Amino acid sequence: MSNRVSGVGRVTLVGGGPGLDDLITVAGARALASADVVLYDRLAPHENLAELAPHASLVNVGKTPGHHPVSQKGIEALLVEYARTGSNVVRLKGGDPYVFGRGSEEVIACQLAGIPVSVVPGVTSAISVPAAAGIPLTHRGVSHLFTVVSGHAPLTDSELEHLAGLGGTIVVLMGIGTLPQVTQGLQRFGCAAELPVAIIERGFSSEQRTTIADLGTVVFEAARVGARSPAVLVIGEVVRLAHDGDADAAVLLARAERLAEPQ
Amino acid sequence: MSNRVSGVGRVTLVGGGPGLDDLITVAGARALASADVVLYDRLAPHENLAELAPHASLVNVGKTPGHHPVSQKGIEALLVEYARTGSNVVRLKGGDPYVFGRGSEEVIACQLAGIPVSVVPGVTSAISVPAAAGIPLTHRGVSHLFTVVSGHAPLTDSELEHLAGLGGTIVVLMGIGTLPQVTQGLQRFGCAAELPVAIIERGFSSEQRTTIADLGTVVFEAARVGARSPAVLVIGEVVRLAHDGDADAAVLLARAERLAEPQ
Repeated sequence: MSNRVSGVGRVTLVGGGPGLDDLITVAGARALASADVVLYDRLAPHENLAELAPHASLVNVGKTPGHHPVSQKGIEALLVEYARTGSNVVRLKGGDPYVFGRGSEEVIACQLAGIPVSVVPGVTSAISVPAAAGIPLTHRGVSHLFTVVSGHAPLTDSELEHLAGLGGTIVVLMGIGTLPQVTQGLQRFGCAAELPVAIIERGFSSEQRTTIADLGTVVFEAARVGARSPAVLVIGEVVRLAHDGDADAAVLLARAERLAEPQ
Repeated sequence: MSNRVSGVGRVTLVGGGPGLDDLITVAGARALASADVVLYDRLAPHENLAELAPHASLVNVGKTPGHHPVSQKGIEALLVEYARTGSNVVRLKGGDPYVFGRGSEEVIACQLAGIPVSVVPGVTSAISVPAAAGIPLTHRGVSHLFTVVSGHAPLTDSELEHLAGLGGTIVVLMGIGTLPQVTQGLQRFGCAAELPVAIIERGFSSEQRTTIADLGTVVFEAARVGARSPAVLVIGEVVRLAHDGDADAAVLLARAERLAEPQ
């Protein structure tokens, strides 16, 4: 291993959280403040970049869905090259580095190159964006498990069948593209058309918007309101607990008690 | 609603993260620093409590699995009572407030009482503790979905059957108690005895320990090493990517490439 070569720096993958600059961890903010080079992409919270050391270099590797100005292999090569100059390199990613972020591939690339690498976890949008819309992924008596999938690629029939049978809460990250396939597939394998669905667009931004419908109507509703990426879908009974801060208390209580009855 | 009653304070549920004091979010640390009263329990990171305002009151409601010195209803009543004195109340929880933390019940209790309440998300141990053991929950070509369940109660046969069929990664929080039921159930419904399993005990503490086995052997291994709560289980092919920082690069590359082949 070449870890001990003189002048070799290190790489830290930092989960930037779901977009607000104060939802990065204290450890993540510290790592950024001490970085010589920061590689970041579109979904990472850019506000944090203001707190960098004056000498730090910023490299926008600009991944957006379907458009990668720097390829994944290119990003991995950059991480290794910068570290080999002795730099303290931070790879700032949106959410958590190990949830659909290809962080694991970047860690392996560094390890193969003999570069010391570590991971600072982050607040994943899979949990926090629903929370920002008032939706808990778990609630006693309502949902005691949740599954997180990516909408980047269609789910297989087997996956849809077992998701439909499993119950609990389903979260689809980047879910607009596969919304018709997922909702129709879940119904084909037995989910009720009345199962609630929430679409949360642009979570934690000033333009956050929640659209609530059900499996039978959500494709129509999404088209009607013009729902666009980035968006998180939540499918399951917990969506009925959604509130917007003005929920009528009696309605909320009735919902929670009805949902928590033995099923 | 009584939100506008003079002197009514507010409640902020803060996800304290998986245990290290710097894995709380910047927003969570700020909320703690401005709290008049903090209600915390065993799994919340206690180190953060050092950064409280000098006048702040600390209330240990001390939940441990199966042992709740203050009942859930009692905690909810305390949140409301303290807020009604005009206090800025922080409820510090381990991990994320909306992942098996009964945070949703506490939010509803505050809403029903007309107390303004908000949630600061946290880094969940479901993702970060595996990461601390070098295990990514997702990896391109290996796992593109994950399910998180709690080991507090047994899974039903239907849940085990669909979990077995779904594939991807399964995370069991507080998983020691139900380890035999889960591992035998998954095999009964078709999972291979060779499917890898990791037990990560006391994640992020100085006593963190990872035990890697497979569905067929993990109950024996857990007994042999004396595995105890709190522990996170990870079940799935991603466990083969686990490394301890000294992994041989060639072995790691071979693993990743073999795992990423079309299945």
